[in-house]
Amino acid sequence: MKAIAENINVMNKSIGDAMQNRVAEPIQQLAKQCTDAGANLLDINLGPARKGGAELMEWVVQTVQEASDLQLCLDTTNPEAMEAGIKACKQPPLLNSFSAQPDKMEKILPLAAKYDCEIIGLTMSTHIPIDADERIAIAYELVAAANALGISNSRIWIDPIILPIGVEVGQAHAVAVQNVLKSFPELFEEPVQSTCGLSNTSNGAPDELRSSIERAYLPMLAACGMTSCICNAKDPEMMRTIRLINALKNESLYSVSDAELK
Amino acid sequence: MKAIAENINVMNKSIGDAMQNRVAEPIQQLAKQCTDAGANLLDINLGPARKGGAELMEWVVQTVQEASDLQLCLDTTNPEAMEAGIKACKQPPLLNSFSAQPDKMEKILPLAAKYDCEIIGLTMSTHIPIDADERIAIAYELVAAANALGISNSRIWIDPIILPIGVEVGQAHAVAVQNVLKSFPELFEEPVQSTCGLSNTSNGAPDELRSSIERAYLPMLAACGMTSCICNAKDPEMMRTIRLINALKNESLYSVSDAELK
Repeated sequence: MKAIAENINVMNKSIGDAMQNRVAEPIQQLAKQCTDAGANLLDINLGPARKGGAELMEWVVQTVQEASDLQLCLDTTNPEAMEAGIKACKQPPLLNSFSAQPDKMEKILPLAAKYDCEIIGLTMSTHIPIDADERIAIAYELVAAANALGISNSRIWIDPIILPIGVEVGQAHAVAVQNVLKSFPELFEEPVQSTCGLSNTSNGAPDELRSSIERAYLPMLAACGMTSCICNAKDPEMMRTIRLINALKNESLYSVSDAELK
Repeated sequence: MKAIAENINVMNKSIGDAMQNRVAEPIQQLAKQCTDAGANLLDINLGPARKGGAELMEWVVQTVQEASDLQLCLDTTNPEAMEAGIKACKQPPLLNSFSAQPDKMEKILPLAAKYDCEIIGLTMSTHIPIDADERIAIAYELVAAANALGISNSRIWIDPIILPIGVEVGQAHAVAVQNVLKSFPELFEEPVQSTCGLSNTSNGAPDELRSSIERAYLPMLAACGMTSCICNAKDPEMMRTIRLINALKNESLYSVSDAELK
């Protein structure tokens, strides 16, 4: 279970301000904190980044790379910002994300092929299916489209899309995501990777309860085969849960320090 | 995910003393606490109970039933104590446990058939196999033996046996238990139930870290199909995790109070 830190996000007020004003220090401090907490990748979430997105992404990537050597996950719906970010990366980033929507297939997916990047594929088209089967069909379609451009399964990270547990049919979605993950070994001869926006599951719950919901769900997803998550790297209990998951899947050598809060 | 409270245990010093001295109050108070905390069954663990085990079990069962209406799980290796306990139960209890060891097959399993009880079957013979396949073979053997006595699969609770994560090959055991659970849908046409001694996984870790290890493992087991666990019902974080597991498997109707500590 790799941890992709969700923290460097333009929607975070102080980080968003620092981005707009090109103040490196708070962004670099956050990047260091997430790195020290044990994150495996850093997500750089600029959202739509419509105005000046390319310049902003280039600056943020350069700024973060001065503070951390971790692989970056570039998170924007703006293809120009995505490409500018890729070019600024010292090592090929993970692109977040494409889906079965035509504009994503045409403008984001080809960037992964052109620049030898890994890429997240969301199991959605114009809508998010409630059931597992429709998500699985889309996952198959995403992988086929990526393969057709020469992107191997190991570089494709399928995101079965978590919705809040508290919304209508949220519980059905929570089960569907587990069933999608369980289908992958039979669906793909060469394994794909997988990921999720973990904090979505607790969206709408009181802040002080969110971590507990996410920490109950993540081990379930891990047992179903999920190989990474986009999560709050500054939550020590979350990072402990991830260390313990890795030990309990025998993917790391257990030590009692895995269970300690750091 | 049903919670079987592990708390009423002769190895618990104050409870053990109360049992030996036939002092009902602390035992009944504990039974009420576990019931109020949301336990689904109460385990009454008398261990070997060699001397006067039958009289002790009868008294403890009667004592606990005055304080709680929950189904009981009778936990002893002494067949006479087990039978005395069954006879004292107002509703058929869950028997804990039999295994592929001949004495368990001959002396414990027939009690389940005779008294229409549910029964836990441990996937072990003279030793505990490290790998999943050998555990699965034993599970099949246990179910066949129980079926032969007229016990249906729905009344058989397979325990794939958790060992401490911190012992040698503990991590291999942790993975094997997950794989045993995953095999059940294909192995048994009529589903069996399943359970585990959850606290075993953290045995040997510092007390203050044990709950965190157990709460990382339990959702993994739940996602693999585990239908119950023997756990510390007095750990509010454990009971919260179980409520959230049930919501995230869509086996209960989620409410935000599931995430609150009670």
